[in-house]
Amino acid sequence: MLRKYIQEKSTLIDLALEEFIPEYNGYPAKVFEAMRYSLLAGGKRLRPVLLMAAADAVGGQGARYRHVACGLEMIHTYSLIHDDLPSMDNDDYRRGKLTNHKVFGEAIALLAGDGLLTAAFEIMLAQPEVAPAVLLQVVREIASSAGATGMIGGQTVDLLSEGKMINIATLTYMHQAKTGALFKAALRAGAMLANAQTWQVDALTTYAEEFGLTFQITDDILDVTGDQAKIGKPVGSDEKNQKATYVSLYSLAEAQSMAEAAGQQALSALDKFGPEADVLRLMVRYILTREN
Amino acid sequence: MLRKYIQEKSTLIDLALEEFIPEYNGYPAKVFEAMRYSLLAGGKRLRPVLLMAAADAVGGQGARYRHVACGLEMIHTYSLIHDDLPSMDNDDYRRGKLTNHKVFGEAIALLAGDGLLTAAFEIMLAQPEVAPAVLLQVVREIASSAGATGMIGGQTVDLLSEGKMINIATLTYMHQAKTGALFKAALRAGAMLANAQTWQVDALTTYAEEFGLTFQITDDILDVTGDQAKIGKPVGSDEKNQKATYVSLYSLAEAQSMAEAAGQQALSALDKFGPEADVLRLMVRYILTREN
Repeated sequence: MLRKYIQEKSTLIDLALEEFIPEYNGYPAKVFEAMRYSLLAGGKRLRPVLLMAAADAVGGQGARYRHVACGLEMIHTYSLIHDDLPSMDNDDYRRGKLTNHKVFGEAIALLAGDGLLTAAFEIMLAQPEVAPAVLLQVVREIASSAGATGMIGGQTVDLLSEGKMINIATLTYMHQAKTGALFKAALRAGAMLANAQTWQVDALTTYAEEFGLTFQITDDILDVTGDQAKIGKPVGSDEKNQKATYVSLYSLAEAQSMAEAAGQQALSALDKFGPEADVLRLMVRYILTREN
Repeated sequence: MLRKYIQEKSTLIDLALEEFIPEYNGYPAKVFEAMRYSLLAGGKRLRPVLLMAAADAVGGQGARYRHVACGLEMIHTYSLIHDDLPSMDNDDYRRGKLTNHKVFGEAIALLAGDGLLTAAFEIMLAQPEVAPAVLLQVVREIASSAGATGMIGGQTVDLLSEGKMINIATLTYMHQAKTGALFKAALRAGAMLANAQTWQVDALTTYAEEFGLTFQITDDILDVTGDQAKIGKPVGSDEKNQKATYVSLYSLAEAQSMAEAAGQQALSALDKFGPEADVLRLMVRYILTREN
């Protein structure tokens, strides 16, 4: 069931992304080419799928919100392009392909990231079938999650922590901000767009927090135990970059049981939901057993 | 009169910027410090002042729209930070101070730019006293102007044209996109926020286009004839970077008379407006005679 849901929704999302950021024949064609290179590189589309699944879980129709959903994917993709730049993580591979700056050069990669971030807002604000006041609130919250107290804040701390011993409080902050905030925004946006009740938004917020933690711990685990061919980038890059992770601060076994525990908490948050939240339930198992 | 208006509005804008991007004491304090470093470096605040002046010109109260106005200044500032990076123009000075990456390093400068762009949207979407549907439309248009078919498109062409002979059509596109689009968005946003009539929006659009051209030609002239102490960055950087400009494609005298002609067109666009557009009229002369 989950496989079918993800396939169906990610096809819809891929088509929408292709539509929203089309090939461009004017003067700045090159920056569109670079934006499309990373955006259409076939990621898991986890954030837009979560947004749609949250809307479905509260009785809405997730597929309606493809503008906001695609905006989240564009924000995620821009953050990867900038994160991979030589002045940041200096990575050569991403999703099994050369990173953006390896293909287009640093300057165009920088502009492609800027272009995707800006396009994300343009497209989210064009979401039809939503009351303008609701849309304003949702996009504002996404901006906040992606901003300097959210994702960018997490990247800042990540960067400043390289090669340093950091404690678990800093690691927790860093992950909540760097990846957790956007997951939370995805789930909350889906619920709010579909006019969820307050208890539903609250429950999905808790789910999102625990889901984000599960995701991050498994991400750290995969960087140690993963298969480069499956994860699409070299294994061991955290250790190479001297990054504190759940696996460096705890043992592998401890990290695995922490991921399981967080996953359980995510499931508990859905207790009051019926079968319409089954996709979100299955997503937890999917993350815990993922190979990429 | 203009001096008083600019002083009054830019004081209001500086205070609002200080309020919107406050000092931050949490983990990512560094990125806030970097954002504030460039944002509060005392630029001319031309875009937010134009937004307010456009609202005033159609009988509105420009000072009300400080959220959207400040968003424009944040977008402008982020573009300068990224533009100055080593992989782009590699500039050491801006507004008479060291560029952001010279003080904070490339990675934090990159994130500070990203943070300002993201904050711009968060803050614009929080603009009070405007109907949500109008605000959505205005912010969408700003996103479009700042994006890959607008400002970022212009930067792309600028970058790809370095060291090459480009024709006047390419130069015109580049400037319209790189600086013109955001000026146009500023004027149109001010008018639309203040519920202007269609003819007023149209007239201010024409004004904006000619104003932008005037600004760009005088910018190119200043890069040749300016005083480094006044413009805050080295003179002759266009020639050093082998950039095509109005002064390289035309003579200095020709460029000067083109700037005058564009300024006249801007003034003509205001023919149907009364004294409430006097600030916009004076702005044209201000740009034509500016020393920085």
